[in-house]
Amino acid sequence: MKNISKYPEKNTWETLLERPVLEKKDLRNTVAEIFLKVKNEGDLALKEFSAKFDQVTIENFLVSEKEIESAITEVSEELKTAIKQAKENIYKFHLAQKAESEEIETAKGVFCWRESRAIENVGLYIPGGTAPLFSTVLMLAVPAQIAGCKELILCTPPQKDGSINPAILFTAQLCGITKIFKIGGAQAIAALTSGTESIPKVDKIFGPGNQYVTQAKQLAMEYNVAIDLPAGPSEVLVIADETADPQFCAADLLSQAEHGTDSQVIFISTDEGIFNETLKEIEKQVAELPRNEIAKSALENSRFILMNSVEEALEMSNYYAPEHLILSVENPRTYISKINNAGSVFLGNYTPESAGDYASGTNHTLPTNGFARNYSGVSLDSFVKKITIQEISKTGIQNIGKTIEVMAEAEGLTAHKNAVSLRLKSLENGI
Amino acid sequence: MKNISKYPEKNTWETLLERPVLEKKDLRNTVAEIFLKVKNEGDLALKEFSAKFDQVTIENFLVSEKEIESAITEVSEELKTAIKQAKENIYKFHLAQKAESEEIETAKGVFCWRESRAIENVGLYIPGGTAPLFSTVLMLAVPAQIAGCKELILCTPPQKDGSINPAILFTAQLCGITKIFKIGGAQAIAALTSGTESIPKVDKIFGPGNQYVTQAKQLAMEYNVAIDLPAGPSEVLVIADETADPQFCAADLLSQAEHGTDSQVIFISTDEGIFNETLKEIEKQVAELPRNEIAKSALENSRFILMNSVEEALEMSNYYAPEHLILSVENPRTYISKINNAGSVFLGNYTPESAGDYASGTNHTLPTNGFARNYSGVSLDSFVKKITIQEISKTGIQNIGKTIEVMAEAEGLTAHKNAVSLRLKSLENGI
Repeated sequence: MKNISKYPEKNTWETLLERPVLEKKDLRNTVAEIFLKVKNEGDLALKEFSAKFDQVTIENFLVSEKEIESAITEVSEELKTAIKQAKENIYKFHLAQKAESEEIETAKGVFCWRESRAIENVGLYIPGGTAPLFSTVLMLAVPAQIAGCKELILCTPPQKDGSINPAILFTAQLCGITKIFKIGGAQAIAALTSGTESIPKVDKIFGPGNQYVTQAKQLAMEYNVAIDLPAGPSEVLVIADETADPQFCAADLLSQAEHGTDSQVIFISTDEGIFNETLKEIEKQVAELPRNEIAKSALENSRFILMNSVEEALEMSNYYAPEHLILSVENPRTYISKINNAGSVFLGNYTPESAGDYASGTNHTLPTNGFARNYSGVSLDSFVKKITIQEISKTGIQNIGKTIEVMAEAEGLTAHKNAVSLRLKSLENGI
Repeated sequence: MKNISKYPEKNTWETLLERPVLEKKDLRNTVAEIFLKVKNEGDLALKEFSAKFDQVTIENFLVSEKEIESAITEVSEELKTAIKQAKENIYKFHLAQKAESEEIETAKGVFCWRESRAIENVGLYIPGGTAPLFSTVLMLAVPAQIAGCKELILCTPPQKDGSINPAILFTAQLCGITKIFKIGGAQAIAALTSGTESIPKVDKIFGPGNQYVTQAKQLAMEYNVAIDLPAGPSEVLVIADETADPQFCAADLLSQAEHGTDSQVIFISTDEGIFNETLKEIEKQVAELPRNEIAKSALENSRFILMNSVEEALEMSNYYAPEHLILSVENPRTYISKINNAGSVFLGNYTPESAGDYASGTNHTLPTNGFARNYSGVSLDSFVKKITIQEISKTGIQNIGKTIEVMAEAEGLTAHKNAVSLRLKSLENGI
């Protein structure tokens, strides 16, 4: 296997950890045209785009009650039970993120606090393609439901026969999705941005997608719609010491590699034996995978690195800022304080990334592409906004009034000063 | 005064509350060229742009210790005391936003929690122009300092003589700014995005600015730098019942109107007497303002509306989603649960907006332009990211393993399933 580095010097890290540069086609104009057409022509434009891009004729974008009911019967009991258990764990973890509003008396008579309010209308995009990502429905709809969003709109491209994968429909109805629409691609994002006869306009759009969807979400922001996170290919960084299990490490690395040819996998070990064993295990396991072509191609972008210590490995990890970080090391909790940049962290030998992808309760919508330096993953916070509230008593304004007057004057904002002076004067007169 | 509506029907609200459409010049190409030049030529490009746009020759962008020391002596003791009191209140309010990490056992043996980490390098942009916005330095640097950001870089355009306003320098050093640079405009944002010989690259950029700066911040996001908030003109909505004070209402409305000609002011009253008095007070007070040309022009964009009840007024406010909402009504706290969309709320007759602008402790960097529907204002959260962490015991993976296997299989991701199966198998064998 290529891409092996042994004890790389720090000045080589930048080159060593370069992410595969995406061939970023300039889709801005293409997508801007789609937006304009959807804004002007509504459903008619959506029908045209569905025929053109998805080769499917859609009369009614809204999935009917009947379609949902029949989908529910098609999902196996085993899968239903699994989805329900995952939902329960995700619910518990996100419910605990509800923050109480604490009132602070910042100065005598000056009371300030914050209150959370749900973003009223949210749009969830679930891509089509080979894998029906019902797990992403859970990850987005569960916190939206806890937040109390009023409208939860789901858009997903139909299959060639005009139907939606039953597991997606089952999960959507389980999580209180208000309406499900059969529409995909940039045109779905355009519809959620402007609204059409069928599809309501939303305040924020969530969910993964291809390059067109990504560009469309960027454009949506220019139309004043918020989005969850900037997009990029998925990635994992595994740190393994002598207590790691090469079989497990290989499986974790491959579960990232099978996502897509642009996935990136970084393996750092402090133990040469574990390092070599893991490389062998990868060769062995990859051969068995149905998606082995994808996984093999992703391994081309990957890095296998020997380092001197877990501390040094963590320094490299912070530099890279991985979406997922697995610490297959002894006493992993002792290293937590050293982690600065990572989306989600998995501790020890029995915490595979796939647990977080599906069922442990944490969210799998995470910052990729180095965004773990400056973004959090999706959480309950992503579905609310916080409003600051303040109430100042007569004593309060007498306490801080002078400060405001002096500062407003120094900034040349006389009316700002007046708003305080008039109040102070009225209180003096009242005494 | 124009722009008066009495008891408007709901179907007229959309037109009535239309925000003044900004003449949005397409600055994308202009700014993209600035970015490219700064990326390629570094400080040299910055010097060229400073000469061209700010008519100033800068040899050394970094403000020296000596310049800071001498600025400190230039700020009056009165202003220093005011800035320090404001800082203390802002510090208290933002410190209380520190959230404890609570570990949740989502299923037996499955432990999940979140930890906050500071965004390491942040850039604060403070515009130049007529008013030296040292209050914005407080609003951005204080939470950054509490968060524990490592590098706090401040960029602000120099005055024609190459100096920076002393109040800005005093406030910056008071709040632990690491480095202050004399550079403004889109080129400052470009420098913070790519880094130059003098100016370090940052992870997130905060602060207000003109159309060029706004466009530059949008472009920064395409270079993977995060930003605080999308920009728009400032606005206030005041709701006044019969207990309001027309003098105070007028002063509050004007303190918004003096910000800029594109500021928007909306006044809603449920009492015709208060309504008429407030209109008269505005005429009276505006004449006295040094910035009365700006305020008068802003009043052109404004709305004065009579309505039947505070509840109805709040419904309109939620529809409009104002940056600032003032409730000059009896028992204002009883209405809080009805507020869904607002940036910051001011309760009662002694809580002017200017208190929140300067010194009560809340942040004044807030969502404008209707963004209060989908964004929070700046808070401690804006300077951290939250990392999810999970640790699963052997019992834990045995508990949720089957769920993960079933879901991964249904999504066609075999390697994800394997990562669990191998662990379950090893535990079976171990028993």
